[in-house]
Amino acid sequence: MQQTGALGQLMRALRCLPGVGAKSAQRMSFHLLQRDPEGARHLAESLLGALDKIGYCKQCRTLTEEDLCDICQSTKRESSLLCVVETPAEVFAINLSTGFKGVFFVLHGRLSPLDGIGPTDLRLDLLEERFKTAEIKEVILATNTTVEGEATAHYIHDMAQQFGIKTSRIAYGMPFGGELEYVDGTTLAHAFNGRREF
Amino acid sequence: MQQTGALGQLMRALRCLPGVGAKSAQRMSFHLLQRDPEGARHLAESLLGALDKIGYCKQCRTLTEEDLCDICQSTKRESSLLCVVETPAEVFAINLSTGFKGVFFVLHGRLSPLDGIGPTDLRLDLLEERFKTAEIKEVILATNTTVEGEATAHYIHDMAQQFGIKTSRIAYGMPFGGELEYVDGTTLAHAFNGRREF
Repeated sequence: MQQTGALGQLMRALRCLPGVGAKSAQRMSFHLLQRDPEGARHLAESLLGALDKIGYCKQCRTLTEEDLCDICQSTKRESSLLCVVETPAEVFAINLSTGFKGVFFVLHGRLSPLDGIGPTDLRLDLLEERFKTAEIKEVILATNTTVEGEATAHYIHDMAQQFGIKTSRIAYGMPFGGELEYVDGTTLAHAFNGRREF
Repeated sequence: MQQTGALGQLMRALRCLPGVGAKSAQRMSFHLLQRDPEGARHLAESLLGALDKIGYCKQCRTLTEEDLCDICQSTKRESSLLCVVETPAEVFAINLSTGFKGVFFVLHGRLSPLDGIGPTDLRLDLLEERFKTAEIKEVILATNTTVEGEATAHYIHDMAQQFGIKTSRIAYGMPFGGELEYVDGTTLAHAFNGRREF
Protein backbone atom coordinates (compact mmCIF):
# COMPACT_ATOMS: atom_id res chain seq x y z
CA MET A 1 0.00 0.00 0.00
CA GLN A 2 1.48 3.31 -1.11
CA GLN A 3 0.64 5.98 1.45
CA THR A 4 -0.91 9.02 -0.24
CA GLY A 5 -1.23 12.67 0.72
CA ALA A 6 1.06 14.81 2.87
CA LEU A 7 2.14 11.87 5.06
CA GLY A 8 3.11 9.78 2.05
CA GLN A 9 4.95 12.72 0.53
CA LEU A 10 6.92 13.23 3.76
CA MET A 11 7.81 9.52 3.90
CA ARG A 12 9.13 9.62 0.35
CA ALA A 13 10.93 12.95 0.84
CA LEU A 14 12.85 11.61 3.85
CA ARG A 15 14.35 8.93 1.64
CA CYS A 16 16.63 11.54 0.06
CA LEU A 17 18.70 11.25 3.25
CA PRO A 18 21.62 8.84 2.89
CA GLY A 19 21.03 5.55 4.69
CA VAL A 20 17.29 6.11 5.10
CA GLY A 21 15.02 3.47 3.55
CA ALA A 22 11.25 3.05 3.49
CA LYS A 23 11.00 1.68 7.02
CA SER A 24 13.16 4.38 8.65
CA ALA A 25 11.38 7.09 6.70
CA GLN A 26 8.08 5.79 8.03
CA ARG A 27 9.36 5.74 11.61
CA MET A 28 10.83 9.23 11.24
CA SER A 29 7.59 10.61 9.80
CA PHE A 30 5.47 9.33 12.67
CA HIS A 31 8.04 10.43 15.22
CA LEU A 32 8.22 13.97 13.84
CA LEU A 33 4.48 14.45 13.48
CA GLN A 34 3.52 12.99 16.83
CA ARG A 35 6.42 13.64 19.18
CA ASP A 36 8.50 16.42 17.75
CA PRO A 37 6.60 18.85 15.50
CA GLU A 38 8.82 21.63 16.88
CA GLY A 39 11.93 19.76 15.78
CA ALA A 40 10.36 19.09 12.37
CA ARG A 41 9.65 22.77 11.82
CA HIS A 42 13.15 23.67 12.97
CA LEU A 43 14.60 21.07 10.58
CA ALA A 44 12.59 22.45 7.64
CA GLU A 45 13.77 25.97 8.40
CA SER A 46 17.39 24.85 8.86
CA LEU A 47 17.28 23.09 5.49
CA LEU A 48 15.94 26.16 3.72
CA GLY A 49 18.39 28.41 5.59
CA ALA A 50 21.34 26.22 4.66
CA LEU A 51 20.29 25.98 1.01
CA ASP A 52 19.85 29.71 0.90
CA LYS A 53 23.05 30.79 2.66
CA ILE A 54 25.69 28.17 1.97
CA GLY A 55 27.88 28.31 -1.10
CA TYR A 56 31.51 27.55 -1.97
CA CYS A 57 34.59 29.46 -0.81
CA LYS A 58 36.04 31.09 -3.92
CA GLN A 59 39.56 30.26 -2.82
CA CYS A 60 39.44 26.73 -1.39
CA ARG A 61 35.98 25.60 -2.57
CA THR A 62 34.79 24.29 0.79
CA LEU A 63 31.27 25.11 2.04
CA THR A 64 30.84 28.57 3.54
CA GLU A 65 28.30 31.33 4.01
CA GLU A 66 30.71 34.04 2.87
CA ASP A 67 32.94 34.70 -0.14
CA LEU A 68 35.93 33.29 1.72
CA CYS A 69 35.60 30.55 4.35
CA ASP A 70 36.76 30.96 7.97
CA ILE A 71 39.96 29.05 7.26
CA CYS A 72 40.97 31.10 4.22
CA GLN A 73 40.12 34.31 6.10
CA SER A 74 42.05 33.37 9.22
CA THR A 75 45.38 35.07 9.84
CA LYS A 76 46.41 32.35 12.27
CA ARG A 77 46.75 29.62 9.66
CA GLU A 78 49.90 28.90 7.68
CA SER A 79 48.92 29.64 4.10
CA SER A 80 52.17 28.06 2.87
CA LEU A 81 50.89 24.63 3.92
CA LEU A 82 48.20 23.45 1.50
CA CYS A 83 46.16 20.30 2.02
CA VAL A 84 44.25 18.91 -0.99
CA VAL A 85 41.11 16.88 -0.20
CA GLU A 86 38.21 15.46 -2.18
CA THR A 87 35.25 16.85 -0.21
CA PRO A 88 34.27 19.56 2.31
CA ALA A 89 33.43 16.77 4.77
CA GLU A 90 37.13 15.93 4.80
CA VAL A 91 38.09 19.53 5.59
CA PHE A 92 35.74 19.20 8.55
CA ALA A 93 37.20 15.84 9.62
CA ILE A 94 40.85 16.97 9.33
CA ASN A 95 40.12 20.17 11.27
CA LEU A 96 38.38 18.18 13.97
CA SER A 97 40.91 15.39 14.45
CA THR A 98 44.36 16.60 13.45
CA GLY A 99 46.40 19.56 14.60
CA PHE A 100 46.70 20.79 11.00
CA LYS A 101 47.00 24.57 10.90
CA GLY A 102 47.44 25.12 7.17
CA VAL A 103 44.85 25.79 4.46
CA PHE A 104 42.86 23.60 2.10
CA PHE A 105 41.84 23.03 -1.47
CA VAL A 106 38.70 20.96 -2.13
CA LEU A 107 38.50 19.03 -5.41
CA HIS A 108 34.83 18.00 -5.12
CA GLY A 109 35.69 14.62 -6.56
CA ARG A 110 38.65 12.73 -7.96
CA LEU A 111 40.01 12.10 -11.42
CA SER A 112 37.98 9.33 -12.98
CA PRO A 113 38.27 9.07 -16.77
CA LEU A 114 35.68 6.29 -16.89
CA ASP A 115 33.08 8.62 -15.37
CA GLY A 116 34.27 11.46 -17.55
CA ILE A 117 35.76 13.42 -14.64
CA GLY A 118 38.92 15.22 -15.74
CA PRO A 119 41.16 18.02 -14.41
CA THR A 120 38.73 20.76 -15.44
CA ASP A 121 35.89 19.24 -13.39
CA LEU A 122 38.11 19.33 -10.30
CA ARG A 123 39.10 22.91 -11.07
CA LEU A 124 42.77 22.01 -11.10
CA ASP A 125 43.26 25.25 -13.04
CA LEU A 126 42.38 27.12 -9.82
CA LEU A 127 44.85 24.97 -7.92
CA GLU A 128 47.56 25.60 -10.51
CA GLU A 129 46.88 29.32 -10.26
CA ARG A 130 47.48 29.01 -6.54
CA PHE A 131 50.72 27.10 -7.06
CA LYS A 132 51.80 29.96 -9.32
CA THR A 133 50.79 32.95 -7.23
CA ALA A 134 50.83 31.90 -3.57
CA GLU A 135 53.96 31.03 -1.64
CA ILE A 136 53.50 27.35 -0.96
CA LYS A 137 56.10 25.26 0.86
CA GLU A 138 54.30 21.94 0.95
CA VAL A 139 51.25 20.35 -0.61
CA ILE A 140 49.74 17.56 1.48
CA LEU A 141 47.88 15.13 -0.77
CA ALA A 142 44.98 13.89 1.35
CA THR A 143 42.81 12.38 -1.37
CA ASN A 144 41.29 9.01 -0.51
CA THR A 145 43.44 5.92 -0.61
CA THR A 146 41.45 4.43 -3.48
CA VAL A 147 42.71 3.84 -7.00
CA GLU A 148 41.19 7.10 -8.26
CA GLY A 149 42.33 9.03 -5.18
CA GLU A 150 45.83 7.71 -5.74
CA ALA A 151 45.81 8.71 -9.43
CA THR A 152 44.56 12.18 -8.48
CA ALA A 153 47.38 12.54 -5.94
CA HIS A 154 49.92 11.56 -8.59
CA TYR A 155 48.50 14.07 -11.05
CA ILE A 156 48.67 16.91 -8.52
CA HIS A 157 52.14 15.83 -7.43
CA ASP A 158 53.28 16.21 -11.07
CA MET A 159 51.67 19.65 -11.25
CA ALA A 160 53.39 20.78 -8.06
CA GLN A 161 56.75 19.51 -9.30
CA GLN A 162 56.59 21.94 -12.22
CA PHE A 163 56.59 24.76 -9.68
CA GLY A 164 59.25 23.13 -7.54
CA ILE A 165 56.80 22.62 -4.67
CA LYS A 166 57.35 19.75 -2.25
CA THR A 167 54.44 17.30 -1.89
CA SER A 168 53.62 14.69 0.75
CA ARG A 169 51.04 11.94 0.90
CA ILE A 170 49.10 10.93 4.04
CA ALA A 171 50.48 7.72 5.54
CA TYR A 172 49.20 4.27 4.74
CA GLY A 173 49.15 1.71 7.48
CA MET A 174 47.06 -0.04 10.09
CA PRO A 175 44.00 1.86 11.32
CA PHE A 176 44.28 2.63 15.03
CA GLY A 177 42.79 -0.20 17.09
CA GLY A 178 42.95 -2.54 14.10
CA GLU A 179 43.86 -6.20 14.29
CA LEU A 180 46.42 -7.59 11.86
CA GLU A 181 44.32 -10.68 11.31
CA TYR A 182 41.36 -8.78 9.92
CA VAL A 183 42.98 -6.05 7.87
CA ASP A 184 43.21 -6.46 4.07
CA GLY A 185 46.45 -7.62 2.48
CA THR A 186 47.31 -4.36 0.70
CA THR A 187 47.02 -2.36 3.91
CA LEU A 188 49.09 -4.91 5.79
CA ALA A 189 51.80 -4.83 3.11
CA HIS A 190 51.87 -1.02 3.23
CA ALA A 191 52.06 -1.04 7.03
CA PHE A 192 54.87 -3.58 6.95
CA ASN A 193 56.95 -1.87 4.28
CA GLY A 194 56.37 1.55 5.82
CA ARG A 195 57.52 0.45 9.29
CA ARG A 196 59.46 2.93 11.43
CA GLU A 197 62.10 2.55 14.11
CA PHE A 198 60.47 2.03 17.50
CA MET B 1 34.99 21.79 17.33
CA GLN B 2 31.37 22.88 17.22
CA GLN B 3 30.39 23.85 13.69
CA THR B 4 28.77 27.29 13.63
CA GLY B 5 26.48 29.04 11.17
CA ALA B 6 23.85 27.56 8.87
CA LEU B 7 25.78 24.30 8.36
CA GLY B 8 26.10 23.75 12.12
CA GLN B 9 22.44 24.54 12.60
CA LEU B 10 21.47 22.00 9.93
CA MET B 11 23.69 19.34 11.52
CA ARG B 12 22.06 19.90 14.90
CA ALA B 13 18.54 20.10 13.46
CA LEU B 14 18.91 16.72 11.72
CA ARG B 15 19.51 15.10 15.10
CA CYS B 16 15.79 15.45 15.89
CA LEU B 17 15.34 12.42 13.60
CA PRO B 18 15.19 9.13 15.50
CA GLY B 19 18.39 7.11 15.17
CA VAL B 20 20.43 10.01 13.80
CA GLY B 21 23.52 10.97 15.82
CA ALA B 22 26.23 13.57 15.27
CA LYS B 23 28.12 11.57 12.67
CA SER B 24 25.06 10.69 10.54
CA ALA B 25 23.78 14.26 10.78
CA GLN B 26 27.12 15.48 9.46
CA ARG B 27 27.07 13.00 6.59
CA MET B 28 23.45 13.88 5.76
CA SER B 29 24.20 17.62 5.78
CA PHE B 30 27.09 17.34 3.35
CA HIS B 31 25.14 14.95 1.16
CA LEU B 32 22.11 17.24 0.96
CA LEU B 33 24.07 20.41 0.30
CA GLN B 34 26.45 18.96 -2.28
CA ARG B 35 24.59 16.19 -4.02
CA ASP B 36 20.90 16.68 -3.48
CA PRO B 37 19.87 20.31 -2.89
CA GLU B 38 16.66 19.55 -4.82
CA GLY B 39 15.84 16.72 -2.41
CA ALA B 40 16.65 18.94 0.57
CA ARG B 41 14.26 21.61 -0.62
CA HIS B 42 11.58 19.01 -1.30
CA LEU B 43 12.12 17.58 2.19
CA ALA B 44 11.77 21.01 3.82
CA GLU B 45 8.56 21.67 1.91
CA SER B 46 7.18 18.20 2.71
CA LEU B 47 7.88 18.74 6.40
CA LEU B 48 6.09 22.08 6.43
CA GLY B 49 3.24 20.67 4.32
CA ALA B 50 2.79 17.70 6.64
CA LEU B 51 2.89 19.87 9.78
CA ASP B 52 0.37 22.19 8.24
CA LYS B 53 -2.11 19.67 6.86
CA ILE B 54 -2.01 16.60 9.08
CA GLY B 55 -4.17 16.31 12.18
CA TYR B 56 -6.08 13.57 13.97
CA CYS B 57 -9.21 11.79 12.75
CA LYS B 58 -12.00 12.83 15.10
CA GLN B 59 -13.40 9.31 15.16
CA CYS B 60 -10.39 6.97 15.35
CA ARG B 61 -7.61 9.46 16.19
CA THR B 62 -5.18 8.29 13.53
CA LEU B 63 -3.29 10.82 11.39
CA THR B 64 -5.27 12.33 8.54
CA GLU B 65 -5.59 15.49 6.47
CA GLU B 66 -9.38 15.57 6.81
CA ASP B 67 -11.91 15.49 9.65
CA LEU B 68 -12.38 11.76 9.16
CA CYS B 69 -9.59 9.49 7.92
CA ASP B 70 -9.87 7.35 4.76
CA ILE B 71 -10.62 4.25 6.81
CA CYS B 72 -13.43 5.81 8.86
CA GLN B 73 -14.89 7.36 5.68
CA SER B 74 -14.76 4.14 3.68
CA THR B 75 -18.01 2.29 3.05
CA LYS B 76 -16.11 -0.89 2.24
CA ARG B 77 -14.83 -1.51 5.76
CA GLU B 78 -16.73 -3.44 8.43
CA SER B 79 -17.41 -0.86 11.09
CA SER B 80 -18.55 -3.59 13.48
CA LEU B 81 -14.98 -4.88 13.74
CA LEU B 82 -12.92 -2.47 15.87
CA CYS B 83 -9.17 -2.82 16.32
CA VAL B 84 -7.55 -0.89 19.19
CA VAL B 85 -3.89 0.08 18.74
CA GLU B 86 -1.41 2.33 20.51
CA THR B 87 -0.14 4.46 17.62
CA PRO B 88 -1.00 5.57 14.05
CA ALA B 89 2.13 3.71 12.88
CA GLU B 90 0.39 0.49 13.93
CA VAL B 91 -2.72 1.34 11.91
CA PHE B 92 -0.35 1.72 8.97
CA ALA B 93 1.44 -1.58 9.69
CA ILE B 94 -1.78 -3.59 10.19
CA ASN B 95 -3.28 -2.16 7.01
CA LEU B 96 -0.14 -3.00 5.09
CA SER B 97 0.42 -6.56 6.32
CA THR B 98 -2.87 -8.10 7.37
CA GLY B 99 -6.12 -8.55 5.52
CA PHE B 100 -7.98 -6.66 8.26
CA LYS B 101 -11.01 -4.88 6.83
CA GLY B 102 -12.48 -3.38 9.99
CA VAL B 103 -11.91 0.02 11.60
CA PHE B 104 -9.51 1.34 14.23
CA PHE B 105 -9.19 3.27 17.42
CA VAL B 106 -5.80 4.81 18.27
CA LEU B 107 -4.93 5.29 21.96
CA HIS B 108 -1.77 7.37 21.41
CA GLY B 109 -0.10 5.57 24.27
CA ARG B 110 -0.90 2.97 26.88
CA LEU B 111 -2.02 3.02 30.50
CA SER B 112 1.00 3.73 32.64
CA PRO B 113 0.18 4.95 36.16
CA LEU B 114 3.88 5.50 36.93
CA ASP B 115 4.12 8.03 34.09
CA GLY B 116 0.77 9.53 35.07
CA ILE B 117 -0.99 8.22 31.96
CA GLY B 118 -4.56 7.25 32.79
CA PRO B 119 -7.79 6.47 30.87
CA THR B 120 -8.49 10.17 30.16
CA ASP B 121 -5.13 10.64 28.42
CA LEU B 122 -5.93 7.76 26.08
CA ARG B 123 -9.41 9.22 25.46
CA LEU B 124 -11.06 6.00 26.57
CA ASP B 125 -14.18 8.13 27.04
CA LEU B 126 -14.34 8.44 23.23
CA LEU B 127 -13.90 4.69 22.92
CA GLU B 128 -16.65 4.05 25.49
CA GLU B 129 -18.93 6.39 23.57
CA ARG B 130 -18.28 4.27 20.50
CA PHE B 131 -19.04 1.05 22.41
CA LYS B 132 -22.32 2.66 23.44
CA THR B 133 -23.46 4.13 20.13
CA ALA B 134 -21.92 2.05 17.33
CA GLU B 135 -22.88 -1.53 16.59
CA ILE B 136 -19.70 -3.39 17.45
CA LYS B 137 -19.41 -7.16 17.22
CA GLU B 138 -15.79 -7.61 18.17
CA VAL B 139 -13.00 -5.53 19.63
CA ILE B 140 -9.52 -6.70 18.64
CA LEU B 141 -7.00 -5.67 21.29
CA ALA B 142 -3.80 -5.00 19.35
CA THR B 143 -1.88 -3.06 21.99
CA ASN B 144 1.77 -4.01 22.33
CA THR B 145 2.69 -7.20 24.13
CA THR B 146 4.46 -5.31 26.92
CA VAL B 147 3.33 -5.11 30.55
CA GLU B 148 1.60 -1.76 30.00
CA GLY B 149 0.11 -2.86 26.68
CA GLU B 150 -1.23 -5.95 28.41
CA ALA B 151 -2.74 -3.90 31.26
CA THR B 152 -4.33 -1.55 28.73
CA ALA B 153 -5.84 -4.50 26.84
CA HIS B 154 -7.30 -5.83 30.12
CA TYR B 155 -8.79 -2.46 30.97
CA ILE B 156 -10.47 -2.12 27.57
CA HIS B 157 -11.64 -5.74 27.74
CA ASP B 158 -13.42 -4.91 31.02
CA MET B 159 -14.99 -1.82 29.44
CA ALA B 160 -16.24 -3.83 26.46
CA GLN B 161 -17.70 -6.50 28.74
CA GLN B 162 -20.02 -3.92 30.27
CA PHE B 163 -21.58 -3.49 26.86
CA GLY B 164 -21.61 -7.21 26.14
CA ILE B 165 -19.06 -6.82 23.36
CA LYS B 166 -16.76 -9.71 22.53
CA THR B 167 -13.03 -9.00 22.66
CA SER B 168 -10.00 -10.81 21.25
CA ARG B 169 -6.28 -10.38 21.74
CA ILE B 170 -3.62 -10.73 19.02
CA ALA B 171 -1.79 -14.06 19.29
CA TYR B 172 1.43 -14.55 21.18
CA GLY B 173 3.97 -16.94 19.77
CA MET B 174 7.16 -17.33 17.81
CA PRO B 175 7.94 -14.54 15.33
CA PHE B 176 7.99 -15.86 11.75
CA GLY B 177 11.48 -17.05 10.81
CA GLY B 178 12.48 -17.14 14.47
CA GLU B 179 14.73 -19.78 16.00
CA LEU B 180 13.61 -21.47 19.22
CA GLU B 181 17.12 -21.24 20.60
CA TYR B 182 17.25 -17.46 20.47
CA VAL B 183 13.74 -16.46 21.46
CA ASP B 184 13.10 -15.31 25.05
CA GLY B 185 11.58 -17.71 27.59
CA THR B 186 8.22 -15.97 27.97
CA THR B 187 7.61 -16.00 24.23
CA LEU B 188 8.61 -19.64 24.01
CA ALA B 189 6.27 -20.55 26.88
CA HIS B 190 3.41 -18.69 25.19
CA ALA B 191 4.15 -20.37 21.84
CA PHE B 192 4.24 -23.77 23.52
CA ASN B 193 1.08 -23.39 25.56
CA GLY B 194 -0.78 -21.81 22.67
CA ARG B 195 0.08 -24.64 20.26
CA ARG B 196 -2.50 -25.70 17.66
CA GLU B 197 -3.28 -28.97 15.97
CA PHE B 198 -1.14 -29.41 12.84
